[in-house]
Amino acid sequence: MLKLYFAPNTCALASHIALEDAGADYSTVRLDFAADEQRQPAYLAINPKGRVPSLVTERGVLTETPAMLAFIAQSYPHAGLAPLGDPFAFAAVQAFNSYLCSTLHVAHAHGRRGYRWADDEAAFEAMRRFVPRSVGACFELIEREMLKGPWVMGDTYTICDPYLFTVSRWLEGDGVDPAAVPKVVDHRRRMSERAAVRKVVADELG
Amino acid sequence: MLKLYFAPNTCALASHIALEDAGADYSTVRLDFAADEQRQPAYLAINPKGRVPSLVTERGVLTETPAMLAFIAQSYPHAGLAPLGDPFAFAAVQAFNSYLCSTLHVAHAHGRRGYRWADDEAAFEAMRRFVPRSVGACFELIEREMLKGPWVMGDTYTICDPYLFTVSRWLEGDGVDPAAVPKVVDHRRRMSERAAVRKVVADELG
Repeated sequence: MLKLYFAPNTCALASHIALEDAGADYSTVRLDFAADEQRQPAYLAINPKGRVPSLVTERGVLTETPAMLAFIAQSYPHAGLAPLGDPFAFAAVQAFNSYLCSTLHVAHAHGRRGYRWADDEAAFEAMRRFVPRSVGACFELIEREMLKGPWVMGDTYTICDPYLFTVSRWLEGDGVDPAAVPKVVDHRRRMSERAAVRKVVADELG
Repeated sequence: MLKLYFAPNTCALASHIALEDAGADYSTVRLDFAADEQRQPAYLAINPKGRVPSLVTERGVLTETPAMLAFIAQSYPHAGLAPLGDPFAFAAVQAFNSYLCSTLHVAHAHGRRGYRWADDEAAFEAMRRFVPRSVGACFELIEREMLKGPWVMGDTYTICDPYLFTVSRWLEGDGVDPAAVPKVVDHRRRMSERAAVRKVVADELG
Protein backbone atom coordinates (compact mmCIF):
# COMPACT_ATOMS: atom_id res chain seq x y z
CA MET A 1 0.00 0.00 0.00
CA LEU A 2 1.20 3.50 -0.81
CA LYS A 3 1.72 6.00 2.00
CA LEU A 4 1.63 9.75 1.36
CA TYR A 5 3.32 12.19 3.75
CA PHE A 6 1.67 15.59 3.52
CA ALA A 7 1.03 18.85 5.32
CA PRO A 8 -2.19 20.83 4.84
CA ASN A 9 -2.17 23.72 2.34
CA THR A 10 0.96 22.47 0.58
CA CYS A 11 1.51 21.12 -2.90
CA ALA A 12 1.09 17.60 -1.48
CA LEU A 13 -2.62 18.12 -2.11
CA ALA A 14 -2.07 17.52 -5.84
CA SER A 15 -0.73 14.00 -5.33
CA HIS A 16 -3.35 13.33 -2.68
CA ILE A 17 -6.15 14.15 -5.13
CA ALA A 18 -4.48 12.12 -7.90
CA LEU A 19 -4.27 9.07 -5.61
CA GLU A 20 -7.99 9.43 -4.94
CA ASP A 21 -8.72 9.95 -8.66
CA ALA A 22 -6.74 6.80 -9.45
CA GLY A 23 -8.65 4.69 -6.94
CA ALA A 24 -5.32 3.80 -5.32
CA ASP A 25 -5.02 1.88 -2.09
CA TYR A 26 -3.18 4.45 0.04
CA SER A 27 -2.86 5.90 3.50
CA THR A 28 -1.70 9.34 4.60
CA VAL A 29 0.55 10.72 7.32
CA ARG A 30 0.14 14.37 8.31
CA LEU A 31 3.28 16.29 9.24
CA ASP A 32 3.09 19.18 11.69
CA PHE A 33 5.05 22.01 10.09
CA ALA A 34 4.45 24.22 13.16
CA ALA A 35 6.47 21.67 15.17
CA ASP A 36 9.07 21.51 12.36
CA GLU A 37 8.35 17.83 12.02
CA GLN A 38 9.60 17.83 8.43
CA ARG A 39 13.13 18.59 9.67
CA GLN A 40 13.28 15.95 12.40
CA PRO A 41 15.49 12.86 11.96
CA ALA A 42 12.51 10.49 11.67
CA TYR A 43 11.24 12.28 8.59
CA LEU A 44 14.66 13.11 7.13
CA ALA A 45 15.28 9.36 7.03
CA ILE A 46 12.31 9.14 4.65
CA ASN A 47 13.02 12.32 2.68
CA PRO A 48 16.42 13.94 3.24
CA LYS A 49 15.15 17.14 1.59
CA GLY A 50 12.90 17.77 4.60
CA ARG A 51 9.94 18.68 2.45
CA VAL A 52 6.56 17.32 1.48
CA PRO A 53 5.22 15.42 -0.30
CA SER A 54 6.86 12.01 -0.04
CA LEU A 55 5.26 8.84 -1.34
CA VAL A 56 6.41 5.60 0.25
CA THR A 57 6.06 2.65 -2.13
CA GLU A 58 7.06 -1.01 -1.91
CA ARG A 59 10.12 -0.15 -4.00
CA GLY A 60 11.22 2.95 -2.10
CA VAL A 61 10.36 6.59 -1.56
CA LEU A 62 9.40 9.03 -4.31
CA THR A 63 9.48 12.82 -4.05
CA GLU A 64 8.81 15.84 -6.31
CA THR A 65 5.21 16.46 -7.31
CA PRO A 66 5.62 16.19 -11.12
CA ALA A 67 7.38 12.82 -10.75
CA MET A 68 4.81 11.54 -8.25
CA LEU A 69 1.89 12.60 -10.43
CA ALA A 70 3.35 10.81 -13.46
CA PHE A 71 4.01 7.75 -11.29
CA ILE A 72 0.39 7.67 -10.15
CA ALA A 73 -0.86 8.03 -13.74
CA GLN A 74 1.43 5.24 -14.97
CA SER A 75 0.71 2.94 -12.04
CA TYR A 76 -3.08 3.18 -12.51
CA PRO A 77 -3.40 3.36 -16.29
CA HIS A 78 -7.10 2.48 -16.26
CA ALA A 79 -7.84 5.73 -14.44
CA GLY A 80 -6.80 7.56 -17.62
CA LEU A 81 -5.01 10.39 -15.82
CA ALA A 82 -2.41 11.04 -18.56
CA PRO A 83 -1.93 10.28 -22.29
CA LEU A 84 0.51 7.47 -21.54
CA GLY A 85 0.85 6.10 -25.05
CA ASP A 86 1.64 9.43 -26.71
CA PRO A 87 5.10 10.85 -25.90
CA PHE A 88 4.26 14.34 -27.21
CA ALA A 89 1.00 14.65 -25.30
CA PHE A 90 2.60 13.16 -22.19
CA ALA A 91 5.44 15.70 -22.47
CA ALA A 92 2.91 18.53 -22.74
CA VAL A 93 1.35 17.31 -19.47
CA GLN A 94 4.77 17.15 -17.87
CA ALA A 95 5.80 20.58 -19.16
CA PHE A 96 2.73 22.12 -17.54
CA ASN A 97 3.42 20.40 -14.23
CA SER A 98 7.11 21.29 -14.37
CA TYR A 99 6.18 24.95 -14.87
CA LEU A 100 3.95 24.91 -11.80
CA CYS A 101 6.74 23.28 -9.78
CA SER A 102 9.77 25.25 -10.90
CA THR A 103 8.27 28.68 -11.67
CA LEU A 104 4.87 29.26 -10.06
CA HIS A 105 5.49 27.38 -6.80
CA VAL A 106 8.96 28.93 -6.52
CA ALA A 107 7.52 32.44 -6.97
CA HIS A 108 4.91 31.66 -4.28
CA ALA A 109 7.57 30.34 -1.89
CA HIS A 110 9.31 33.72 -1.84
CA GLY A 111 6.42 35.01 0.26
CA ARG A 112 7.24 32.82 3.24
CA ARG A 113 10.51 31.02 2.66
CA GLY A 114 12.95 33.71 1.59
CA TYR A 115 15.53 32.03 3.85
CA ARG A 116 16.06 29.52 1.06
CA TRP A 117 17.68 32.24 -1.10
CA ALA A 118 19.02 34.93 1.25
CA ASP A 119 19.78 35.52 4.93
CA ASP A 120 18.67 39.07 5.54
CA GLU A 121 15.33 40.41 6.69
CA ALA A 122 15.25 43.34 4.24
CA ALA A 123 15.67 40.90 1.36
CA PHE A 124 12.86 38.70 2.74
CA GLU A 125 10.62 41.75 2.84
CA ALA A 126 11.58 42.70 -0.73
CA MET A 127 10.72 39.16 -1.85
CA ARG A 128 7.37 39.21 -0.01
CA ARG A 129 6.41 42.49 -1.67
CA PHE A 130 7.10 41.06 -5.11
CA VAL A 131 4.95 37.91 -4.79
CA PRO A 132 1.74 39.42 -6.21
CA ARG A 133 3.66 40.40 -9.37
CA SER A 134 5.62 37.19 -9.89
CA VAL A 135 2.81 34.80 -8.99
CA GLY A 136 0.33 37.00 -10.85
CA ALA A 137 2.47 36.82 -14.01
CA CYS A 138 2.49 33.02 -13.77
CA PHE A 139 -1.28 32.80 -13.46
CA GLU A 140 -1.76 35.26 -16.33
CA LEU A 141 0.45 33.11 -18.55
CA ILE A 142 -1.55 30.04 -17.56
CA GLU A 143 -4.82 31.87 -18.23
CA ARG A 144 -3.67 33.16 -21.63
CA GLU A 145 -1.51 30.34 -23.01
CA MET A 146 -1.84 27.09 -21.12
CA LEU A 147 -5.30 26.33 -19.71
CA LYS A 148 -7.16 25.00 -22.74
CA GLY A 149 -10.46 24.37 -20.99
CA PRO A 150 -12.53 22.92 -19.65
CA TRP A 151 -9.52 21.01 -18.25
CA VAL A 152 -5.90 22.07 -18.48
CA MET A 153 -5.20 19.84 -21.46
CA GLY A 154 -8.61 20.33 -23.07
CA ASP A 155 -11.51 17.91 -22.99
CA THR A 156 -9.73 15.28 -20.92
CA TYR A 157 -9.01 15.54 -17.20
CA THR A 158 -5.35 14.76 -16.40
CA ILE A 159 -2.80 14.99 -13.58
CA CYS A 160 -2.40 18.67 -14.53
CA ASP A 161 -5.81 19.46 -13.06
CA PRO A 162 -5.28 18.56 -9.39
CA TYR A 163 -1.93 20.38 -9.52
CA LEU A 164 -3.42 23.58 -10.97
CA PHE A 165 -6.25 23.34 -8.43
CA THR A 166 -3.71 23.05 -5.62
CA VAL A 167 -1.70 26.13 -6.56
CA SER A 168 -4.75 28.19 -7.53
CA ARG A 169 -5.94 27.93 -3.93
CA TRP A 170 -3.00 30.25 -3.11
CA LEU A 171 -4.22 33.05 -5.43
CA GLU A 172 -5.82 35.39 -2.89
CA GLY A 173 -3.18 34.71 -0.22
CA ASP A 174 -0.52 35.71 -2.73
CA GLY A 175 -2.27 38.99 -3.45
CA VAL A 176 -3.31 38.12 -7.00
CA ASP A 177 -6.63 39.53 -8.19
CA PRO A 178 -8.85 36.54 -9.07
CA ALA A 179 -10.77 38.72 -11.55
CA ALA A 180 -7.64 38.84 -13.72
CA VAL A 181 -7.71 35.08 -14.27
CA PRO A 182 -11.35 34.03 -14.71
CA LYS A 183 -10.60 30.72 -16.45
CA VAL A 184 -8.29 29.69 -13.60
CA VAL A 185 -10.92 30.61 -11.02
CA ASP A 186 -13.64 28.75 -12.91
CA HIS A 187 -11.37 25.69 -13.11
CA ARG A 188 -10.83 25.91 -9.36
CA ARG A 189 -14.57 26.06 -8.72
CA ARG A 190 -15.28 23.06 -10.94
CA MET A 191 -12.45 21.10 -9.32
CA SER A 192 -13.74 21.90 -5.83
CA GLU A 193 -17.09 20.31 -6.73
CA ARG A 194 -15.61 16.93 -7.68
CA ALA A 195 -16.31 14.20 -5.15
CA ALA A 196 -12.65 13.11 -4.95
CA VAL A 197 -11.51 16.66 -4.27
CA ARG A 198 -14.15 17.25 -1.61
CA LYS A 199 -13.15 14.05 0.16
CA VAL A 200 -9.43 14.81 0.08
CA VAL A 201 -9.79 18.45 1.15
CA ALA A 202 -11.98 17.35 4.07
CA ASP A 203 -9.42 14.66 5.01
CA GLU A 204 -6.55 17.15 5.01
CA LEU A 205 -8.42 19.64 7.16
CA GLY A 206 -10.01 17.05 9.45
CA MET B 1 12.93 17.00 -37.81
CA LEU B 2 13.23 18.38 -34.31
CA LYS B 3 14.56 21.90 -33.76
CA LEU B 4 16.15 22.94 -30.46
CA TYR B 5 16.35 26.59 -29.45
CA PHE B 6 19.23 27.11 -27.04
CA ALA B 7 21.67 29.64 -25.64
CA PRO B 8 25.21 28.68 -24.59
CA ASN B 9 25.84 27.93 -20.90
CA THR B 10 22.16 27.40 -20.13
CA CYS B 11 20.23 24.31 -19.10
CA ALA B 12 19.39 23.77 -22.80
CA LEU B 13 22.66 21.84 -22.96
CA ALA B 14 21.02 18.88 -21.19
CA SER B 15 18.42 18.38 -23.94
CA HIS B 16 21.04 19.04 -26.60
CA ILE B 17 23.21 16.21 -25.27
CA ALA B 18 20.20 13.91 -24.90
CA LEU B 19 19.22 14.51 -28.55
CA GLU B 20 22.74 13.55 -29.56
CA ASP B 21 22.71 10.50 -27.24
CA ALA B 22 19.40 9.43 -28.79
CA GLY B 23 20.74 9.66 -32.35
CA ALA B 24 17.87 12.04 -33.13
CA ASP B 25 17.56 13.93 -36.40
CA TYR B 26 17.62 17.51 -35.11
CA SER B 27 18.85 21.01 -35.81
CA THR B 28 19.63 23.85 -33.42
CA VAL B 29 18.98 27.58 -33.29
CA ARG B 30 21.19 29.72 -31.07
CA LEU B 31 19.56 32.66 -29.29
CA ASP B 32 21.61 35.72 -28.42
CA PHE B 33 20.78 36.52 -24.80
CA ALA B 34 23.04 39.62 -24.93
CA ALA B 35 20.65 41.02 -27.57
CA ASP B 36 17.65 39.88 -25.47
CA GLU B 37 16.56 37.75 -28.39
CA GLN B 38 14.59 35.47 -26.07
CA ARG B 39 12.21 38.33 -25.29
CA GLN B 40 11.56 39.44 -28.87
CA PRO B 41 8.18 38.77 -30.52
CA ALA B 42 9.64 36.21 -32.96
CA TYR B 43 10.76 33.96 -30.12
CA LEU B 44 7.82 34.69 -27.82
CA ALA B 45 5.60 33.29 -30.58
CA ILE B 46 7.47 29.99 -30.14
CA ASN B 47 7.79 30.09 -26.36
CA PRO B 48 5.71 32.73 -24.55
CA LYS B 49 7.81 32.20 -21.42
CA GLY B 50 10.77 33.86 -23.15
CA ARG B 51 13.20 31.24 -21.95
CA VAL B 52 15.29 28.41 -23.34
CA PRO B 53 15.16 25.60 -24.16
CA SER B 54 12.30 25.08 -26.59
CA LEU B 55 11.94 22.02 -28.77
CA VAL B 56 9.91 22.41 -31.94
CA THR B 57 8.34 19.13 -33.03
CA GLU B 58 5.89 18.20 -35.78
CA ARG B 59 3.12 18.26 -33.18
CA GLY B 60 4.01 21.57 -31.53
CA VAL B 61 6.50 23.15 -29.16
CA LEU B 62 7.73 21.57 -25.94
CA THR B 63 9.42 23.41 -23.08
CA GLU B 64 10.76 22.61 -19.58
CA THR B 65 13.90 20.49 -19.41
CA PRO B 66 12.49 17.54 -17.39
CA ALA B 67 9.57 17.19 -19.83
CA MET B 68 11.82 17.48 -22.88
CA LEU B 69 14.29 14.91 -21.54
CA ALA B 70 11.48 12.41 -20.89
CA PHE B 71 10.09 13.13 -24.37
CA ILE B 72 13.47 12.39 -25.97
CA ALA B 73 13.82 9.16 -23.97
CA GLN B 74 10.30 8.02 -24.92
CA SER B 75 10.63 9.04 -28.57
CA TYR B 76 13.89 7.10 -29.05
CA PRO B 77 13.32 4.04 -26.87
CA HIS B 78 16.13 2.05 -28.49
CA ALA B 79 18.65 4.54 -27.11
CA GLY B 80 17.80 3.25 -23.62
CA LEU B 81 17.92 6.67 -21.97
CA ALA B 82 15.30 5.93 -19.28
CA PRO B 83 13.64 2.88 -17.67
CA LEU B 84 10.48 3.37 -19.70
CA GLY B 85 8.73 0.14 -18.74
CA ASP B 86 9.11 0.59 -14.98
CA PRO B 87 6.94 3.36 -13.47
CA PHE B 88 8.87 3.43 -10.19
CA ALA B 89 12.31 3.62 -11.81
CA PHE B 90 11.03 6.18 -14.33
CA ALA B 91 9.63 8.26 -11.47
CA ALA B 92 13.00 8.14 -9.70
CA VAL B 93 14.61 9.52 -12.87
CA GLN B 94 11.99 12.22 -13.06
CA ALA B 95 12.30 13.10 -9.37
CA PHE B 96 16.02 13.68 -9.81
CA ASN B 97 15.49 15.88 -12.86
CA SER B 98 12.67 17.77 -11.16
CA TYR B 99 14.96 18.51 -8.22
CA LEU B 100 17.62 19.94 -10.53
CA CYS B 101 15.00 22.09 -12.25
CA SER B 102 12.98 23.38 -9.31
CA THR B 103 15.60 23.54 -6.54
CA LEU B 104 19.19 23.57 -7.82
CA HIS B 105 18.63 25.62 -10.98
CA VAL B 106 16.39 28.02 -9.06
CA ALA B 107 19.08 28.53 -6.40
CA HIS B 108 21.64 29.18 -9.16
CA ALA B 109 19.34 31.69 -10.88
CA HIS B 110 19.35 33.92 -7.81
CA GLY B 111 22.93 34.84 -8.69
CA ARG B 112 21.98 36.66 -11.87
CA ARG B 113 18.23 36.87 -12.17
CA GLY B 114 17.06 38.23 -8.85
CA TYR B 115 14.63 40.45 -10.81
CA ARG B 116 12.39 37.42 -11.10
CA TRP B 117 11.66 37.60 -7.35
CA ALA B 118 12.26 41.18 -6.21
CA ASP B 119 12.79 44.67 -7.60
CA ASP B 120 15.45 46.16 -5.38
CA GLU B 121 19.22 46.16 -5.80
CA ALA B 122 19.97 45.44 -2.14
CA ALA B 123 17.83 42.29 -2.37
CA PHE B 124 19.62 41.21 -5.56
CA GLU B 125 22.93 41.60 -3.75
CA ALA B 126 21.64 39.59 -0.78
CA MET B 127 20.53 36.84 -3.17
CA ARG B 128 23.90 36.83 -4.98
CA ARG B 129 25.77 36.48 -1.68
CA PHE B 130 23.69 33.46 -0.72
CA VAL B 131 24.23 31.43 -3.92
CA PRO B 132 27.32 29.52 -2.72
CA ARG B 133 25.32 28.29 0.30
CA SER B 134 22.09 27.38 -1.47
CA VAL B 135 23.68 25.83 -4.56
CA GLY B 136 26.33 24.20 -2.38
CA ALA B 137 23.64 22.57 -0.23
CA CYS B 138 21.98 21.16 -3.37
CA PHE B 139 25.21 19.64 -4.63
CA GLU B 140 26.01 18.22 -1.21
CA LEU B 141 22.61 16.52 -1.11
CA ILE B 142 23.21 15.12 -4.60
CA GLU B 143 26.68 13.92 -3.57
CA ARG B 144 25.43 12.29 -0.38
CA GLU B 145 21.98 10.96 -1.27
CA MET B 146 21.29 10.93 -5.00
CA LEU B 147 24.28 10.20 -7.24
CA LYS B 148 24.54 6.42 -7.05
CA GLY B 149 27.56 6.08 -9.33
CA PRO B 150 29.01 5.62 -11.75
CA TRP B 151 25.93 7.23 -13.31
CA VAL B 152 23.21 9.10 -11.45
CA MET B 153 20.87 6.12 -11.36
CA GLY B 154 23.66 3.54 -10.90
CA ASP B 155 25.11 1.30 -13.59
CA THR B 156 22.92 2.62 -16.39
CA TYR B 157 23.32 5.98 -18.10
CA THR B 158 20.02 7.90 -18.26
CA ILE B 159 18.61 11.37 -19.04
CA CYS B 160 19.66 12.35 -15.50
CA ASP B 161 23.31 12.33 -16.54
CA PRO B 162 23.37 15.10 -19.16
CA TYR B 163 21.25 17.23 -16.83
CA LEU B 164 23.60 16.78 -13.85
CA PHE B 165 26.56 17.44 -16.16
CA THR B 166 24.93 20.67 -17.34
CA VAL B 167 24.32 22.11 -13.88
CA SER B 168 27.63 20.85 -12.45
CA ARG B 169 29.44 23.08 -14.98
CA TRP B 170 28.13 26.00 -12.88
CA LEU B 171 29.85 24.81 -9.66
CA GLU B 172 32.88 27.10 -9.63
CA GLY B 173 30.97 30.09 -11.01
CA ASP B 174 28.49 29.71 -8.16
CA GLY B 175 31.29 29.74 -5.58
CA VAL B 176 30.91 26.11 -4.53
CA ASP B 177 34.10 24.29 -3.57
CA PRO B 178 34.48 21.36 -5.98
CA ALA B 179 36.48 19.47 -3.35
CA ALA B 180 33.31 19.18 -1.27
CA VAL B 181 31.57 17.14 -3.96
CA PRO B 182 34.14 14.74 -5.44
CA LYS B 183 31.61 12.30 -6.90
CA VAL B 184 29.85 15.12 -8.75
CA VAL B 185 33.16 16.39 -10.11
CA ASP B 186 34.23 12.91 -11.18
CA HIS B 187 30.86 12.45 -12.93
CA ARG B 188 31.42 15.76 -14.74
CA ARG B 189 34.86 14.67 -15.90
CA ARG B 190 33.60 11.33 -17.21
CA MET B 191 30.70 13.03 -18.97
CA SER B 192 33.03 15.56 -20.60
CA GLU B 193 35.00 12.70 -22.18
CA ARG B 194 31.97 11.17 -23.96
CA ALA B 195 31.99 11.72 -27.71
CA ALA B 196 28.41 13.04 -27.79
CA VAL B 197 29.15 15.56 -25.07
CA ARG B 198 32.36 16.78 -26.74
CA LYS B 199 30.51 17.26 -30.01
CA VAL B 200 27.61 19.15 -28.44
CA VAL B 201 29.79 21.38 -26.26
CA ALA B 202 31.92 22.26 -29.30
CA ASP B 203 28.76 22.99 -31.33
CA GLU B 204 27.38 25.32 -28.65
CA LEU B 205 30.62 27.25 -28.34
CA GLY B 206 31.42 27.26 -32.08
